[in-house]
Amino acid sequence: MANKLLITGSVAYDCIETPLAKADYILGGSASYAALAASFFAPTCMASIVGNDFKESDVARLKARGIDLSSLVIDSSRPTFFWRGKYHDNFNSRETLDIKLNVFEDYKPSLADGAKDANFVLLGNISPAVQRAALEAVAKPSFVILDTMDLWINIANAELKGIIPRADILILNDSEAKLLAGTRNIIGAGDVLLKLGAKSVIIKTGEYGAMLFHKDGFFVIPAFPVRALHDPTGAGDSFAGALAGSLAGSGDTSFKAIKNAMIAGAATASLTVESFSCYKLEETGIEEINRRIRLIKQYSQL
Amino acid sequence: MANKLLITGSVAYDCIETPLAKADYILGGSASYAALAASFFAPTCMASIVGNDFKESDVARLKARGIDLSSLVIDSSRPTFFWRGKYHDNFNSRETLDIKLNVFEDYKPSLADGAKDANFVLLGNISPAVQRAALEAVAKPSFVILDTMDLWINIANAELKGIIPRADILILNDSEAKLLAGTRNIIGAGDVLLKLGAKSVIIKTGEYGAMLFHKDGFFVIPAFPVRALHDPTGAGDSFAGALAGSLAGSGDTSFKAIKNAMIAGAATASLTVESFSCYKLEETGIEEINRRIRLIKQYSQL
Repeated sequence: MANKLLITGSVAYDCIETPLAKADYILGGSASYAALAASFFAPTCMASIVGNDFKESDVARLKARGIDLSSLVIDSSRPTFFWRGKYHDNFNSRETLDIKLNVFEDYKPSLADGAKDANFVLLGNISPAVQRAALEAVAKPSFVILDTMDLWINIANAELKGIIPRADILILNDSEAKLLAGTRNIIGAGDVLLKLGAKSVIIKTGEYGAMLFHKDGFFVIPAFPVRALHDPTGAGDSFAGALAGSLAGSGDTSFKAIKNAMIAGAATASLTVESFSCYKLEETGIEEINRRIRLIKQYSQL
Repeated sequence: MANKLLITGSVAYDCIETPLAKADYILGGSASYAALAASFFAPTCMASIVGNDFKESDVARLKARGIDLSSLVIDSSRPTFFWRGKYHDNFNSRETLDIKLNVFEDYKPSLADGAKDANFVLLGNISPAVQRAALEAVAKPSFVILDTMDLWINIANAELKGIIPRADILILNDSEAKLLAGTRNIIGAGDVLLKLGAKSVIIKTGEYGAMLFHKDGFFVIPAFPVRALHDPTGAGDSFAGALAGSLAGSGDTSFKAIKNAMIAGAATASLTVESFSCYKLEETGIEEINRRIRLIKQYSQL
């Protein structure tokens, strides 16, 4: 029987301005990016919440990718989570101009029956409280991937550290890893984070790639060389989603399988950043993902 | 017959303060770091100049590594090139506190007969004028590696661009690559730099590794994961020296050979940064370099 992947996190409407273009009210949020990415690799359910402004066309986009939305709550009293952001200085800095929690103000994840038996779980970037509740609603999670961001490291540090020991893989970017570990050296940060109790740690290094700290060893992949950066939003969520999907799809969670899943994550994330939202990823699909997986191997294997 | 590698660049006395320790009047400069690194891989001659304060013990160190010093000029009228620097913010920024050109004020490289027939040439970081003069003194250079730094990009841009077409490999770090290319995207920078006429371009990305832009393809290596950073000075020079030595040592300058030489460069540079000057590199030698080469492969190969 195929493994089932449950993904929780935010579903959002984003208004984004980059040095190249702007887009209004496009589908975003960690769960959207992650589920769309994962859907190319494994049966995926999404547990999250949207509001009274959520568009039928966005429901259709998620359904078109076969994503199980039976655990996606629709709260008709309020709008969807909203984020407005702007990239400056040729994408090197990002500013949040507006953020409205809306439906997330008191969201408690609840799972439909078809999601409770998921064996792979991706706790996408959202508050550790929501992540914990989602995890506890899964009957027998066999492999758990935990993503987070600087906000939760700063304002919910104890709660975050409380769920890290449940993670088979903890994913952070380099600045978050250094912040959580309290060190300025990235390798030292990986060593410290393993001691927080995650079975393995992946530190994403943006345009450089990602590093894996695992009991069986250390591993590094390069990023796919993106020449047409359009919008970096969701790159990390897509990486995590494709990684989780790749592991769930094969059911292999060995050191070697995690290495290959990282390459799938990098290939998928490189498509996400070449358009707003996941438009290019959805349009090009698995054939282009697989081509980029082969290229990343070619670019890093002797 | 073995290939002979000629290295030009600076020989300096450095006074260095790091967040961990300080050292006074230690052997530094691009040619010293590069030649000591290269000496583990190929017969190496050094073309540079030192002053009336140059210590016998430092001559002995270079000779102990078999480095041919017949093109190292001793100017008894002035002191050796001097640099005083300090690392701040846990090694994340470097400040030059004092710099004295001394013997380099009017240095024109001249080569001893035994160096003129070198077939591999590393133009280590020094003014493009000195690099050009050294290159022109070599009878038949068959493979040329060109290193530089932001200073020359800023104050000797035209001269630098004049010699780039002579380079089989142009080496820069990521910020220098972006500065010279006039772009903020590292991949875009590699594309632009190839158009300046170098046959291939290596962009060093510090703790992340290095990227190769070559007509036969793109390649990325990770850095060796250094847990005991002591002094980053000379990392780039050591990388370039070991890369040049590795290519000269085998005589193979194919795409595949350059990939392997980059790994040799990264392994050697990781030893340089674990002590002041090259003390640890000289002490541990080829056995530890080879162990780190194997580890870098293990950390990056599926």
